[in-house]
Amino acid sequence: MYAERIANLKSSAIRDILKHMSRPGMIAFAGGSPAPELFPVAEIAVACEQVLSKYGPTALQYSITEGLVVLREKLVSKLAANGLGMSTDNVIITQGSQQALDLISKLFIDKDSLVFTENPSYLGALQAFRMFQARIAAIPSDSHGIDVEALRKQLRVERPKFLYIMPNFQNPTGVTYSLERRKALVAAAIEHDLLIVEDDPYGELIFEGERLPSLFALAKGKNVIYLSSFSKTIAPGFRVAYTAGDAEMLKKMVIAKQGSDLQTNTFGQYIVNEYLESGHYQTSIDVIRDTYRGRRDAMIAAMEQEFPSALAWNRPSGGMFLWVTLPTRWDAKEILERCLEQNVAFVPGQEFFPDGSGRNTLRMNFSSPSLGNIGEGVKRMGKVLKEIRG
Amino acid sequence: MYAERIANLKSSAIRDILKHMSRPGMIAFAGGSPAPELFPVAEIAVACEQVLSKYGPTALQYSITEGLVVLREKLVSKLAANGLGMSTDNVIITQGSQQALDLISKLFIDKDSLVFTENPSYLGALQAFRMFQARIAAIPSDSHGIDVEALRKQLRVERPKFLYIMPNFQNPTGVTYSLERRKALVAAAIEHDLLIVEDDPYGELIFEGERLPSLFALAKGKNVIYLSSFSKTIAPGFRVAYTAGDAEMLKKMVIAKQGSDLQTNTFGQYIVNEYLESGHYQTSIDVIRDTYRGRRDAMIAAMEQEFPSALAWNRPSGGMFLWVTLPTRWDAKEILERCLEQNVAFVPGQEFFPDGSGRNTLRMNFSSPSLGNIGEGVKRMGKVLKEIRG
Repeated sequence: MYAERIANLKSSAIRDILKHMSRPGMIAFAGGSPAPELFPVAEIAVACEQVLSKYGPTALQYSITEGLVVLREKLVSKLAANGLGMSTDNVIITQGSQQALDLISKLFIDKDSLVFTENPSYLGALQAFRMFQARIAAIPSDSHGIDVEALRKQLRVERPKFLYIMPNFQNPTGVTYSLERRKALVAAAIEHDLLIVEDDPYGELIFEGERLPSLFALAKGKNVIYLSSFSKTIAPGFRVAYTAGDAEMLKKMVIAKQGSDLQTNTFGQYIVNEYLESGHYQTSIDVIRDTYRGRRDAMIAAMEQEFPSALAWNRPSGGMFLWVTLPTRWDAKEILERCLEQNVAFVPGQEFFPDGSGRNTLRMNFSSPSLGNIGEGVKRMGKVLKEIRG
Repeated sequence: MYAERIANLKSSAIRDILKHMSRPGMIAFAGGSPAPELFPVAEIAVACEQVLSKYGPTALQYSITEGLVVLREKLVSKLAANGLGMSTDNVIITQGSQQALDLISKLFIDKDSLVFTENPSYLGALQAFRMFQARIAAIPSDSHGIDVEALRKQLRVERPKFLYIMPNFQNPTGVTYSLERRKALVAAAIEHDLLIVEDDPYGELIFEGERLPSLFALAKGKNVIYLSSFSKTIAPGFRVAYTAGDAEMLKKMVIAKQGSDLQTNTFGQYIVNEYLESGHYQTSIDVIRDTYRGRRDAMIAAMEQEFPSALAWNRPSGGMFLWVTLPTRWDAKEILERCLEQNVAFVPGQEFFPDGSGRNTLRMNFSSPSLGNIGEGVKRMGKVLKEIRG
């Protein structure tokens, strides 16, 4: 009765872990949410008023599938600031970046089509590609991004529909591609005519150092589809994200979007547009950066104190996550069970690996918990970890 | 490079016609929008304030894929009023009903899977099913709905994944299923274990007579997936709709939705929920019904006066559309070209017919144009129609 693609369908393990999160006293490093206390609630209230008084019923009516022109014009300016000369034909609004992944799957993936990803990769992307029965091949990645030589080697063997990457403060690892790696990857993409899907939800949440150019900018828009979102920089509840890329390809994405949901919610788009016009955006980003940087530092300081020395972790220079590597034989899932008993949670890393490796890895979220909870939660984890005999 | 499904992809002809609609002086009977002047803008402004002061950042944060529990509880009560004993496990929120059609396609349609529809049928549904490469077979329909005998006969030949119907004030025809037809269809569905997708965006917009039970209610929830929406009863811009049905099947839809867009926008769901609590809903529906009834009557009165007697049309007892049948050899597309020159537009019917028939039919929307424009627009159409020599 069900379609073939449904046979192997499974719910995200993360969503299953999240069920425990409402338990009283639980400290969650398992989530992937931005800090709600930083949402600009008062400014959004003003934006709602403004939108309804300026646009009236138009803000509540159907609107075009591509997304509001005024909002897309602002995104064109944003791209222009990165040296990209584009028009509103090069930008569409999607229902979160997750929808862009669904639409890209619709456009490119037949049953058994090959898709390349990082190893590990973003779970929501894997879920979207698997829904269309893609065959996923993970390209080895290190602390500066995907291994371009390994990619070139693989490209000589088989040709994927596209390579999906998240080059800034990756979910799950927090890894950021170096400038050198970006340039090498763009060169390889152009040489092999490889399409890159560049997912950049966290790029603006940079804590230190220089913001590196997107692959989309480096490639001058060629061979790259660029996804970004207002979910982490304003609030996720509006589901307003955008995709930039080749105009002809976006036209097809728009037709696919017609059948998928007609359009992204009009009111949310107007609110985001109004908020951007209010000038609060940059101030608010600065506050988010400062807060998350403080939380990352607190988490690392606590880990240095509480975690056994056999563990290793990175120090992401932005975003919401850091990545912990346990000794080879340890199993993060088993450790999670014990941690849940101590009312602290993280996400075991294995599910993020298309090749099934990574049993001894885990993802820690530092954007949501308070400084106090970070200290206490890491202490609880440390207690469990110290009891493990490898 | 693109997936196979993209090869035959085409944009909706309706969306192409809508491009002409911004021309000055154009009178559009081609749209499918509710009347914006009836949107409860002031009440929505209050709801926004209330939502932000009651729920604060929670209203802007990620929320569960199934949809807000408070909103789903209200929908469960609504279903209970129709004699259906259900829980929140039987209802999910979707990004418009269009997304429900996408998710149902994901759940059931493999390449070349068979789907039954009415003839004509809703274009957005055809688009969603075709994106998943369904084979669509149209079952003959008359002025009381689908021909159940023809359906039974077809079921003996081949088995579809489901039958898609819109039994109240159908888009495009305005046809409503009689009670007898509903009962016969439910009996056939149970006997043949046929799944029915019942799409009901317009059911509450009834102008006269008794509101008939849904197939979902008649079948006590068995064999039927029920879709409805707040797009036509509050406003489309929030993209808040819902699907009711078997809990196990909805669980799979939820997993499919995770990969499609994670969730429907949180803020829009809270606003709809708050508006429902405000008690304005029923009053507002009464105003919508009165207004649309008046516009339908005005359109029919004008058509009786202005259209040649060789044309026939129906008198829908609700909804937003009526249906015109031209003499057999006339071509509605050609007539549209001439009408556009006179600054009046409608939608030619042929595209709604999966079997390619219906060249001599057209859809008229009476929910959006003002009474004055209805009179003037029908007069312009009448002038063109009178010049046609069949």
